[in-house]
Amino acid sequence: MKRPLVVGVMGGGQVDEAVRTMAYRLGALIAESGWVLLNGGRSAGVMDASAQGAADNGGLTVGILPDETTVQASKHIRIPICTGMGSARNSINVLSSDVVVACPGSAGTVSEIALALKHGKVVITIGYNASGLFDLGKYEHQLVEAATEREAVDIIRRLYPGNDNTPIPPF
Amino acid sequence: MKRPLVVGVMGGGQVDEAVRTMAYRLGALIAESGWVLLNGGRSAGVMDASAQGAADNGGLTVGILPDETTVQASKHIRIPICTGMGSARNSINVLSSDVVVACPGSAGTVSEIALALKHGKVVITIGYNASGLFDLGKYEHQLVEAATEREAVDIIRRLYPGNDNTPIPPF
Amino acid sequence: MKRPLVVGVMGGGQVDEAVRTMAYRLGALIAESGWVLLNGGRSAGVMDASAQGAADNGGLTVGILPDETTVQASKHIRIPICTGMGSARNSINVLSSDVVVACPGSAGTVSEIALALKHGKVVITIGYNASGLFDLGKYEHQLVEAATEREAVDIIRRLYPGNDNTPIPPF
Amino acid sequence: MKRPLVVGVMGGGQVDEAVRTMAYRLGALIAESGWVLLNGGRSAGVMDASAQGAADNGGLTVGILPDETTVQASKHIRIPICTGMGSARNSINVLSSDVVVACPGSAGTVSEIALALKHGKVVITIGYNASGLFDLGKYEHQLVEAATEREAVDIIRRLYPGNDNTPIPPF
Repeated sequence: MKRPLVVGVMGGGQVDEAVRTMAYRLGALIAESGWVLLNGGRSAGVMDASAQGAADNGGLTVGILPDETTVQASKHIRIPICTGMGSARNSINVLSSDVVVACPGSAGTVSEIALALKHGKVVITIGYNASGLFDLGKYEHQLVEAATEREAVDIIRRLYPGNDNTPIPPF
Repeated sequence: MKRPLVVGVMGGGQVDEAVRTMAYRLGALIAESGWVLLNGGRSAGVMDASAQGAADNGGLTVGILPDETTVQASKHIRIPICTGMGSARNSINVLSSDVVVACPGSAGTVSEIALALKHGKVVITIGYNASGLFDLGKYEHQLVEAATEREAVDIIRRLYPGNDNTPIPPF
Repeated sequence: MKRPLVVGVMGGGQVDEAVRTMAYRLGALIAESGWVLLNGGRSAGVMDASAQGAADNGGLTVGILPDETTVQASKHIRIPICTGMGSARNSINVLSSDVVVACPGSAGTVSEIALALKHGKVVITIGYNASGLFDLGKYEHQLVEAATEREAVDIIRRLYPGNDNTPIPPF
Repeated sequence: MKRPLVVGVMGGGQVDEAVRTMAYRLGALIAESGWVLLNGGRSAGVMDASAQGAADNGGLTVGILPDETTVQASKHIRIPICTGMGSARNSINVLSSDVVVACPGSAGTVSEIALALKHGKVVITIGYNASGLFDLGKYEHQLVEAATEREAVDIIRRLYPGNDNTPIPPF
């Protein structure tokens, strides 16, 4: 049986209200599409907002926490994965995502965009251009810029057709 | 909203038919209880059998793979987490489980029992006694032996009451 | 140019004086043999004592710390590796060792013995027998019991001849 | 006793001859300063060239390999650390370095620059400007551009005075 599509949502832990709103709506659209939302799991910034958007709309949310426990997990994460390995978990975030959407963020987000590109994942940035990352020539075809969260979701649907509403769990 | 209970199922990748049957039934009972099954994710031994038991009974299955991709994942795993870090993922397996059930296995399973004890988790062994692990005096209260998979599940229900059928995802 | 032999020394963070003395002497003998000592790096128990024994005798000491910084590192560790990944670093400890010596310890040490066996390393226990680890039949040839730290070092020299005093660094 | 300064050298696995030469000279200068060189450990690109430059000049070289074994290690690495965790080891590279020098590279190098900045390390780029990494405002004081490998080493000496020729091992 086909697995549900896993959309990784990256982005800063400290972001302004506009970015939180973007992340919330992105999470909502992911849930409405019947995809799984995966992120860094913490109760902060893009992680918390995107998880809330998905959870409020019946989506399954998976959080890859840097921590050994769920103390700092977003309450909107249904399945917390406790790695206990700090930033090394950024690598797990991207390897476990079928496609990555990168909201605005900072150094942690840059590391995830870079690791995602290295591991052959498509990265969709919303509202900014990441081509400033040097020597991106070889990754240009993997890096897509979307104007809005809805456009990001449309791009995913076009790239991965036939993945809407795959049952989670297989009831 | 309360998260579903996550039961980690450990055990060998190469086991005989009796252990596969034990693992399958354990997975089935976990799913029937409405708990999430988490294991090492591969298409082998206790991992594959326990995932199948859960999936066949409508349970959510999470697999923490040692690999960078899902190529070696059990088809009964709905949410594969690709760590790309080999045996270092054993630590994630136990940290992410609320309680650990250990079916018979080999060195990998021993490492998971040991790490689980170290991190304060209760470990329930089925059909064998793990007290041969030296200096277990200080962990004795965490290590429980069950005669059967049903007894293991009964122990979990007694230790973590009020966790049956917690919604996954929050529909 | 041939690399120096790396001897991994495992053992408890909380041990009695007799075990500390054993670990110190083991570290001293490793240094006198011109081998590199590798351990978990912290300022506690077998880690600290074995590093001190090696450092006091001119040996190179490498510590694979669970921490993001060196705050908790033994002062006898010359090369601290900061993993920031807690117990997941136990896997690195054994993969990075050519051979593992296990002093008495607790659950963390058991996890390292198990992981070392899984990854094909020879494990020498000093003063105790680890065959209580279940299903060790298939690992019996990798598991060696030594009566003393000197016997452990003699076993290493016999297993890995021609590795004494390999230059570190290649001056 | 004071530990030797550990200089992390990052950069691409596939680079042209000019970058290899830069990396070799950088490694040589690090060794001449009596610092430890730490890199990703593989027999390729900046890793191999910088290790060779250091080893040829009597320096200690530590390689944090993504692999479980040393099969792909540079022969100029004296102390290989086998992590077996692929790109997740990039986090270890930067946490274990007192300061990071980034030669030209690609996505892997970008991830290391980003993780180093996130963890408070100073990053010195040679011959290029990394400020294209978005939202670097908050990291500006950590990011330094050097024109040449010699200038990079001069910057390190100025930032970390009194670290030349710290004994490794404490003979």
